[in-house]
Amino acid sequence: MAMPPSTYPRRLLPLFLGLFQGALLLFFALFITYDEPSAQAEDTNMVANQVYSTFPFFQDIQVMLVVGLGLLLTFLPRYGFSALTHNFLLLNFSMQWALVLQGLLQHFHHGQIHLDLHKLLISEFAAVTALISVGAILGRASPCQLLVMATCEIPFYLATEWVIVTCLGVLDVGGTITIHVFSCYFGLGVSKALFRAAQQPLHPKETPTPSSDLMSLVGTLILWVFWPSFVAVLCQPGDAQHRAILNTLLAMSASAITTVVASSLLERDGKLSLGHLQNGSLAGGVAIGVVADMVMPPVAALALGSLSALVCVLGFRFLTPLLGRKLTLLDQCGIHNLHGLPGILGAAASILVVLVASKDTSGSQPSQLSPAGGNASEVVEAQWGDRGVGRQALYQAAGLAVAVGASLLTGLLTGAALRLPCLARPPERLCFDDSLYFKVQDQAESPGPDGSAEEEALALKERV
Amino acid sequence: MAMPPSTYPRRLLPLFLGLFQGALLLFFALFITYDEPSAQAEDTNMVANQVYSTFPFFQDIQVMLVVGLGLLLTFLPRYGFSALTHNFLLLNFSMQWALVLQGLLQHFHHGQIHLDLHKLLISEFAAVTALISVGAILGRASPCQLLVMATCEIPFYLATEWVIVTCLGVLDVGGTITIHVFSCYFGLGVSKALFRAAQQPLHPKETPTPSSDLMSLVGTLILWVFWPSFVAVLCQPGDAQHRAILNTLLAMSASAITTVVASSLLERDGKLSLGHLQNGSLAGGVAIGVVADMVMPPVAALALGSLSALVCVLGFRFLTPLLGRKLTLLDQCGIHNLHGLPGILGAAASILVVLVASKDTSGSQPSQLSPAGGNASEVVEAQWGDRGVGRQALYQAAGLAVAVGASLLTGLLTGAALRLPCLARPPERLCFDDSLYFKVQDQAESPGPDGSAEEEALALKERV
Amino acid sequence: MAMPPSTYPRRLLPLFLGLFQGALLLFFALFITYDEPSAQAEDTNMVANQVYSTFPFFQDIQVMLVVGLGLLLTFLPRYGFSALTHNFLLLNFSMQWALVLQGLLQHFHHGQIHLDLHKLLISEFAAVTALISVGAILGRASPCQLLVMATCEIPFYLATEWVIVTCLGVLDVGGTITIHVFSCYFGLGVSKALFRAAQQPLHPKETPTPSSDLMSLVGTLILWVFWPSFVAVLCQPGDAQHRAILNTLLAMSASAITTVVASSLLERDGKLSLGHLQNGSLAGGVAIGVVADMVMPPVAALALGSLSALVCVLGFRFLTPLLGRKLTLLDQCGIHNLHGLPGILGAAASILVVLVASKDTSGSQPSQLSPAGGNASEVVEAQWGDRGVGRQALYQAAGLAVAVGASLLTGLLTGAALRLPCLARPPERLCFDDSLYFKVQDQAESPGPDGSAEEEALALKERV
Repeated sequence: MAMPPSTYPRRLLPLFLGLFQGALLLFFALFITYDEPSAQAEDTNMVANQVYSTFPFFQDIQVMLVVGLGLLLTFLPRYGFSALTHNFLLLNFSMQWALVLQGLLQHFHHGQIHLDLHKLLISEFAAVTALISVGAILGRASPCQLLVMATCEIPFYLATEWVIVTCLGVLDVGGTITIHVFSCYFGLGVSKALFRAAQQPLHPKETPTPSSDLMSLVGTLILWVFWPSFVAVLCQPGDAQHRAILNTLLAMSASAITTVVASSLLERDGKLSLGHLQNGSLAGGVAIGVVADMVMPPVAALALGSLSALVCVLGFRFLTPLLGRKLTLLDQCGIHNLHGLPGILGAAASILVVLVASKDTSGSQPSQLSPAGGNASEVVEAQWGDRGVGRQALYQAAGLAVAVGASLLTGLLTGAALRLPCLARPPERLCFDDSLYFKVQDQAESPGPDGSAEEEALALKERV
Repeated sequence: MAMPPSTYPRRLLPLFLGLFQGALLLFFALFITYDEPSAQAEDTNMVANQVYSTFPFFQDIQVMLVVGLGLLLTFLPRYGFSALTHNFLLLNFSMQWALVLQGLLQHFHHGQIHLDLHKLLISEFAAVTALISVGAILGRASPCQLLVMATCEIPFYLATEWVIVTCLGVLDVGGTITIHVFSCYFGLGVSKALFRAAQQPLHPKETPTPSSDLMSLVGTLILWVFWPSFVAVLCQPGDAQHRAILNTLLAMSASAITTVVASSLLERDGKLSLGHLQNGSLAGGVAIGVVADMVMPPVAALALGSLSALVCVLGFRFLTPLLGRKLTLLDQCGIHNLHGLPGILGAAASILVVLVASKDTSGSQPSQLSPAGGNASEVVEAQWGDRGVGRQALYQAAGLAVAVGASLLTGLLTGAALRLPCLARPPERLCFDDSLYFKVQDQAESPGPDGSAEEEALALKERV
Repeated sequence: MAMPPSTYPRRLLPLFLGLFQGALLLFFALFITYDEPSAQAEDTNMVANQVYSTFPFFQDIQVMLVVGLGLLLTFLPRYGFSALTHNFLLLNFSMQWALVLQGLLQHFHHGQIHLDLHKLLISEFAAVTALISVGAILGRASPCQLLVMATCEIPFYLATEWVIVTCLGVLDVGGTITIHVFSCYFGLGVSKALFRAAQQPLHPKETPTPSSDLMSLVGTLILWVFWPSFVAVLCQPGDAQHRAILNTLLAMSASAITTVVASSLLERDGKLSLGHLQNGSLAGGVAIGVVADMVMPPVAALALGSLSALVCVLGFRFLTPLLGRKLTLLDQCGIHNLHGLPGILGAAASILVVLVASKDTSGSQPSQLSPAGGNASEVVEAQWGDRGVGRQALYQAAGLAVAVGASLLTGLLTGAALRLPCLARPPERLCFDDSLYFKVQDQAESPGPDGSAEEEALALKERV
């Protein structure tokens, strides 16, 4: 099993990707078109306005996923290229794959699928699930395993999201339940099935260095800044979107401060842990998604942000080691603390908000409580008004249960599939190591302080 | 006094922050609400348009403050985590604190404060003052000291800003006088009162390394790119905002080039100094704020940008060492050169523009000269037209004097308060060192080039 | 010739820049004004809307050029300051210089040039050419040489762009032909004339280190994210701009995946090359520019993205070494692979799209095919409708030929001029070295792991 790096099989990756890209071209050639150009000036204006109102949000989300999340994952000091590149590759692959599946399932009319910015955005949301799930097995899985995981996860996600949002009418504009909770437990399921009972010893290359931790912290800050765009992009323009932005800003601000409090109190010597900072600061953004556009007092957003940061830090401190010991569960990046626990907290908050908020406004403005949009346009707007508050609260709970159940199940199945030998899981000794996949320069870094030998040689040559 | 790092008191920070966060929750629960949802479609559209016109600017400013300014401060090679984290923490704390104070002072109607994106933005502007002032004492102050400093600075800033903008009617759309000048002299006052006459010797950890200087330069570039959003966000939409963006772009472009010229000419061997580049390139943005939306020819923006960069570089070369020697004044990041001198230059320019511009347009378009907005809506629009040009020029000068005087005074007072022993100023030997506040990995960085020992062990284990 | 670093002449740079900045101030004072403030509320609204629709794109492009491109160039481990600073300086200088020239040539009315955001944007586009051309000679040219190169390149570019877009009516909204192809062959011409037949041996400081390669990869990702803004900013708002954004997103997504496939298949051991990733991922963005707003099926964008990434990686693998050996042509960053080959591919694609697309829509919607805008407003809209499809295809080909021919010729001339001894080309031994231009701290980096000696001394002092 201890194969030398030179014999590690690397041809499956280009083969898999190449075939996929070919199939994608064929699929696009057959089915995908753009909308007819607008016939009238009014339509042109409408398109222009849609672009101006969506595109800045879209770009913010791209920065989050490509740069922010990528950098966040570079905390492994010898695995920076892999973290950035695999994240980037997976985003593109998953987005394309989601585009195909969503096109076939939801937008197929008369043999054609009309592509627009909104559909690309929805596909990007689907792709996020794969990027999150990776966090559970980062550094110990091959890129092929990651791609196969995404190949399975996207359709499972689409099905689960359809059940939760369309069938159950769950309100979840920021994807707390549908994206964060689902992808977290999916990732943990994969990890469990892939690594089974094997206790993973601490790998010598697993420990962050100051410079890798710094890059990762920069990634956190980028995510923190742009998170409101992620939560608010699919909201109904106007009040609901305004509220979603404000709630997210408040929740994230509270998260940032509570993380420092909790981290400092939990460590024996009062020092801050970088892992806590890198994750806890973002926990509020995860939790707030499901209630961001609901009518609730600002204090609720603050409290939810604080609580979720607390839960996240506590999770890192106590739960992750416990799960590792008791369930031999590997969660490399602690996605359970950043996406799982705050996601569940957010779902619980949404039940509360539905129950409480409706009492206050008691039917006078039912449409405000159900601010349309939901995750895409699938939410049946009038539903809630009809079904009553108690039932909506129940459905929110049911949505959470479906997300956890479905993701664990499908994650375990997917993880089992990833054990296929052909997917070339890296040998333990080469985990967390860029040199397995990249042509990395000798670690001896650039020539010494004054590179004297070479320079002398060059100087000599010049003189001649 | 030479305490070992393990006995350094670190519990005050979470205590202070925890209490504040609790009080904030209470305050929010009692007083803060959102606006009622719009009753009519027109109102919804208006809210949507406000979001689209403000939010991209807001996000740009967040990137500036969280990522750009954070990175700029990482030039201290062993203090990167502290620089990024303290900046991030301080931004959130100060913003929340400003929200409370501004709510109480300005937006308190019938026992309620209505929160919206514009009010958050104004609070963010207030928070900037604390972030700038920190620059004077970076690396030598504990996080508790920074928080107490911000606690004092925000109300002092709000009071001063009220005098300058509301009472005196000073025009200062980009916060040159109210934010930059105020926070600079406040920071210097703090530094003076905190460190008194003690000449600070050059600390061995104070010297930037190439890699920390590079990160810092990236921070400068991020600030440089987004600066126009900071200056223009509060302008009247339309011509005034357009002009503010253009003027800022011109000023910053001139700053960039003049910095290179000045730095190269001032150094004996003609090499560029990174400190000059990191600061001089931004000086134009500081100076232009106060005149950005006024009617003036484009050449004025260019000239102001050039001059302020020149002044900034000269300040670094001659004034900072002089102040250090004569006044034993510590200015760690050189905020006097980046915020003080260019701020004063900008204020002087505003006097000139008021005097000259009015001659050209001689009353025909008085409303253009006073383009409303000012720093928030507090500027009494008609005032200037009534009071005449000469008086407005006088008031601009008075505004500068108030800013300098009030900030020095309150800064000195605040600095004296920071000497309280319980605030745990770090001992000299542990200044500029992340390990005092963070659980930092052993500096031995990752295993050696091929981490042979551990890998052998792992390989062996696998073979068994 | 082997001069010590201390005697290297560095005074020409500030002299040149200082004179230029002085002349610019004079020029601005004499000729540049802003538009008259809007007289009516409607006009103000229009200006406001123009700002909101252009400014976010403009900021995206600034991030690309200042941060993204700057970081991409930091792959040289000892040349990070120079790469970032020279890129930044060159952008500002070239933009100002283009503003002057374009003002004189195109916007000079009644002795005045009215400045607005759109004109700044057009100047920024012109400046991009200089930033790209630098890639051919990065690390081996002095900043003075770069500035002189830009001084020559901008007018040559403006002339060529005038011929291609205005005279020939070539459609090229994203600057594929006018910017990318032109600047690539201009840079190669400069490189050839500057270095002549001298085979450049591999310099010891030329090899990237893991950390410099990581920074460079982050630069690529930033460019990748914001590229759609660059392509779409000058499009007609509405459908054309929407299409341009979508096409660019598809092309870049395909590029990212194809780059991984191609790089992995081409390297003997299946590992990925960072150089390929850093460039190939962006190739789709270069190629798509010329057809981005045309009416074509989405599959065309995907295919073009894939093909251009393939061509780019093949270029790095085979063509660059070949050109180096046969033509002794130095192309430090491989701009021929990122800008030249994909640019030519894009131009070829535009011919195809013109020929094919017109058959489909056969005159029913001619205005859709020629979606106005072009690179600025110079495209005579009706032209194409009149001239017929075959001729338009011919003109696209002619545009490519003009771009290649003119750029090579003017590049060779400019390169010859750069051999002037006063421009102080750095001696071989000091190539790729920041210390030639910057005051760089001793490479011994920060004190050792625990900086014991100094700390002891400090601790002692404290105890006394």
